[in-house]
Amino acid sequence: MNVVQKFSQKSRTMAPKTVPKTATPTTVTPNTLSKRQAQLEALMAAAEKRICDSGLQSLKARDLAADIGIALGGLYNIVADMDALLLLVSSRTLKRLGEAATERTGHLPNATREEAIERLVAVAHTYLDFARKNLPLWRMIFELRLDSPLPEWAAQDQLRLFRHIAEPLSVIMPDLDARGLTIRARTLFAAVHGIISIGLEERLIAVPVQKLSDEVAWLTRAACR
Amino acid sequence: MNVVQKFSQKSRTMAPKTVPKTATPTTVTPNTLSKRQAQLEALMAAAEKRICDSGLQSLKARDLAADIGIALGGLYNIVADMDALLLLVSSRTLKRLGEAATERTGHLPNATREEAIERLVAVAHTYLDFARKNLPLWRMIFELRLDSPLPEWAAQDQLRLFRHIAEPLSVIMPDLDARGLTIRARTLFAAVHGIISIGLEERLIAVPVQKLSDEVAWLTRAACR
Repeated sequence: MNVVQKFSQKSRTMAPKTVPKTATPTTVTPNTLSKRQAQLEALMAAAEKRICDSGLQSLKARDLAADIGIALGGLYNIVADMDALLLLVSSRTLKRLGEAATERTGHLPNATREEAIERLVAVAHTYLDFARKNLPLWRMIFELRLDSPLPEWAAQDQLRLFRHIAEPLSVIMPDLDARGLTIRARTLFAAVHGIISIGLEERLIAVPVQKLSDEVAWLTRAACR
Repeated sequence: MNVVQKFSQKSRTMAPKTVPKTATPTTVTPNTLSKRQAQLEALMAAAEKRICDSGLQSLKARDLAADIGIALGGLYNIVADMDALLLLVSSRTLKRLGEAATERTGHLPNATREEAIERLVAVAHTYLDFARKNLPLWRMIFELRLDSPLPEWAAQDQLRLFRHIAEPLSVIMPDLDARGLTIRARTLFAAVHGIISIGLEERLIAVPVQKLSDEVAWLTRAACR
């Protein structure tokens, strides 16, 4: 599914909003599609750059339109609103996170309990490294507050990532049913996320940055032993 | 130490800022002190009410001054700036959290490993209940971004709370030295905080609210077993 299709699907699944009529042209030729896809790519790249440079709070539609050389009204021909754009950016970051987890842990053995625990540690370390290397985009995923319900495709993008935790966890905790496994995977994710997010903010009460990797591994192993 | 003394100490420890001259009157009579303390109390109460009603983001000095019936300039005779006020509010919330932990867990036995683990679970549950009952004020502690370094008294208010974790943890992990114990207490805190904060936001990927208490207890026991 390309991003334009994703966006179209999104418009349908989100709660109704006032969208300029031009956002759904009656005739869409392949040429229009390809041009709109290119504009959407440029818009997402501009948004990612601005989020990395100055954070989510100061992101303005007007600046983004200027970045890619279109009028503000033209921006709403590409996406329905800023929420739609930020969801696409968030989803692209999650997709990269999933790819990083697959690349780094997908080949690791997962047959025995010990193997599964070590694979889970590797998943946690992938998450730490990804957060560290993509700090503003990673933060943005959690800072994003939408005016409308999360569309189904975005929900699936988030839930799909949990298989990286659930697969080893099902070996470690074979007695859990599907519901129990889902909850336990979320508990472990939130625990590791908590250590990393407070740690990378370098708050007074944080686990020191140079200890994050060890402590995340300790928690994962200790919780699963 | 009362809040006016705390504020005075704070002004010294924070990085220099432009503060109206009237903020440090040359003669402070007991009457002035008592009046200023009463004004500070009213100001903090007004800030807490507004944070609970509409969150930290929309808090404005002008509104707070109006709430307690003084001019905007008068507000800066009471506190140096909004950061100073928010730190005092944050600190008062932390103080209440510490009192809740002492009241609910201080009397629990802590001699054996099992006792210490159950005391730690009780500390985690106190934190969950406190966060639930004081959601906007609790969130504010973590949302607060200061322009200046954290003053020493505020740092101590935060670090002091960790004894509720470190005391049972020192029984559970007797081999850790002071530094190791500090880091481990922070790891456990951040893990439990992560589960609770994602959970209470009721995000898609959250541990369901009705399962939070069980999962926090599971994680604490599993990590310490």
